Amino acid sequence: MIAGIRRAAGRSGAARGVQLGIGDDCAILRVPKGHEVLVTTDLSLEGRHFRRDWHPARAVGHRTLARGLSDLAAMGAKPLAAFLSIALPGEVAGSDWLSEFMDGFLGLAKVAGVTLAGGDTAEFAGGVVADIVLTGSAPAGTALRRSGARVGDGIYVTGALGGSAAELLRGARMASPGRPDTRIYPDFEQHPHLFPQPRLAVGAALRRRGMATACIDVSDGISTDLAHLCAESRCGALIEAASLPIHPFAASRADAMQLALHGGEDYELLFTASGRVPGSIAGVNIARIGTVAAGRSVNMVRLDGKTRRLQAQGWEHFRK
Amino acid sequence: MIAGIRRAAGRSGAARGVQLGIGDDCAILRVPKGHEVLVTTDLSLEGRHFRRDWHPARAVGHRTLARGLSDLAAMGAKPLAAFLSIALPGEVAGSDWLSEFMDGFLGLAKVAGVTLAGGDTAEFAGGVVADIVLTGSAPAGTALRRSGARVGDGIYVTGALGGSAAELLRGARMASPGRPDTRIYPDFEQHPHLFPQPRLAVGAALRRRGMATACIDVSDGISTDLAHLCAESRCGALIEAASLPIHPFAASRADAMQLALHGGEDYELLFTASGRVPGSIAGVNIARIGTVAAGRSVNMVRLDGKTRRLQAQGWEHFRK
Repeated sequence: MIAGIRRAAGRSGAARGVQLGIGDDCAILRVPKGHEVLVTTDLSLEGRHFRRDWHPARAVGHRTLARGLSDLAAMGAKPLAAFLSIALPGEVAGSDWLSEFMDGFLGLAKVAGVTLAGGDTAEFAGGVVADIVLTGSAPAGTALRRSGARVGDGIYVTGALGGSAAELLRGARMASPGRPDTRIYPDFEQHPHLFPQPRLAVGAALRRRGMATACIDVSDGISTDLAHLCAESRCGALIEAASLPIHPFAASRADAMQLALHGGEDYELLFTASGRVPGSIAGVNIARIGTVAAGRSVNMVRLDGKTRRLQAQGWEHFRK
Repeated sequence: MIAGIRRAAGRSGAARGVQLGIGDDCAILRVPKGHEVLVTTDLSLEGRHFRRDWHPARAVGHRTLARGLSDLAAMGAKPLAAFLSIALPGEVAGSDWLSEFMDGFLGLAKVAGVTLAGGDTAEFAGGVVADIVLTGSAPAGTALRRSGARVGDGIYVTGALGGSAAELLRGARMASPGRPDTRIYPDFEQHPHLFPQPRLAVGAALRRRGMATACIDVSDGISTDLAHLCAESRCGALIEAASLPIHPFAASRADAMQLALHGGEDYELLFTASGRVPGSIAGVNIARIGTVAAGRSVNMVRLDGKTRRLQAQGWEHFRK
């Protein structure tokens, strides 16, 4: 199985940043002079982050890598190398599922310019478990962090929110045993739930231009992720519901605002800035959604004009 | 749960090599000037690498980290930071098991001078899955590899072989439902199966002294790991059964030679060298077990004096 992944990784070509890849006890990374190394890991679990009977394998592979790349994007880092550890039941290891998973994984790797440089594989009866490790680099001291927001900074978000959760809920409603997974979700390359696009170019531009004072990726929903950013920056926030960019897949739903606030898995960037911020960066729309405030609470001006505390519900709470 | 690990990791103290640890989208590592970064990942799966009803949780935590550290040792690298992704059933997350696992993990981390700098946690009904990521560093171009062995080099192994597998088999024989796990294995710090000692000091010395031409750690059993080393070095080998250092826990068994050759999980170092090699390095015994040969086959002079092909059986085959 590892041999198959090794061949697949070899085919992906790029070896930038990787001195020694799969085939020794460790991989060896070349780090650009004067750069720091960034590392992030994320679990993708069958039944929790995806379902084998709903999600096309290619989308699961894409999403597994996208989760890690999005963390690099949030810090403005350039990807160096990815490592994939995957445990899966014997019948899955021997099926087309793994090769389709790898197609999705390596397709995004190619676009993002990241090399698959190692990992581990094993049979495991308990289900499919993938752990993605991403390494990246940034000039020393320049990586964006969650901790730099200051009172008065604007709060911004890239792209649109709620599309991934809207599709997940639609899938849950449509799913029935035996239904081919391709009927549940439209399988196109920009689909917000199946093929989220990590905002590497936006993150890199924010870092290079010194534009953001703090940044985080929207993986759990902005109510949770904004709370994380505020906690690390020791500040509060006031956002406006009317300013939230709602994804078209969510906009027509009665629960659109809930999806945008708490839905999660949008993989957009949420950042703060003190200076002028353009309406788009690297071709991605940027919306101003509020202002960093004194204190420690996150409040929202609702559509009815009332200002209320915004509870961090996020993904974990929302899906119950 | 992540908060608990964060507190536990914070208590472990050491922050050498880590600029920014748990709490942002990525960790940031400080890499010594002129050094390369080494990365390795290893899965530890319930029911495959450990059993919750046999193995003390503290040993599982130790072994999870030891697997990754041993890969760094094999390349002579100095540990920088560890990342732990762990998925586990809700009832395990809420029990003492996780805190005991972390005790074992962080105990070894402290001894090895490695910081826990991040990771991921999630509930997963399918069982406990831990993925360990180790990063390390070595001066550029000096890391030991599997690929440098030359015909005529001596073949050496550290410590002793077969002790881990002997204990695993003894445990399997003793195990019965409801038996407390501490009765199955003697729970002492140098136990070859529960608390293997990664050979970081030996690996670092081999690298620093330029002594080894190739190196690999013995995770699958030397019949498999020597085959890997020979494949990467494009050479063969001739080893002598009479020279194998057998662990005392295996020596009295009828299958001692099988355990030493194919048992696995010894986490000793297997290396080749062209010059003189001392009888011990960093306090660890070194045994010469054979010579690198022309061709591509691995042969062994058996105890009965006959020379036969040594089949790479290793862990996967052996345990069936």
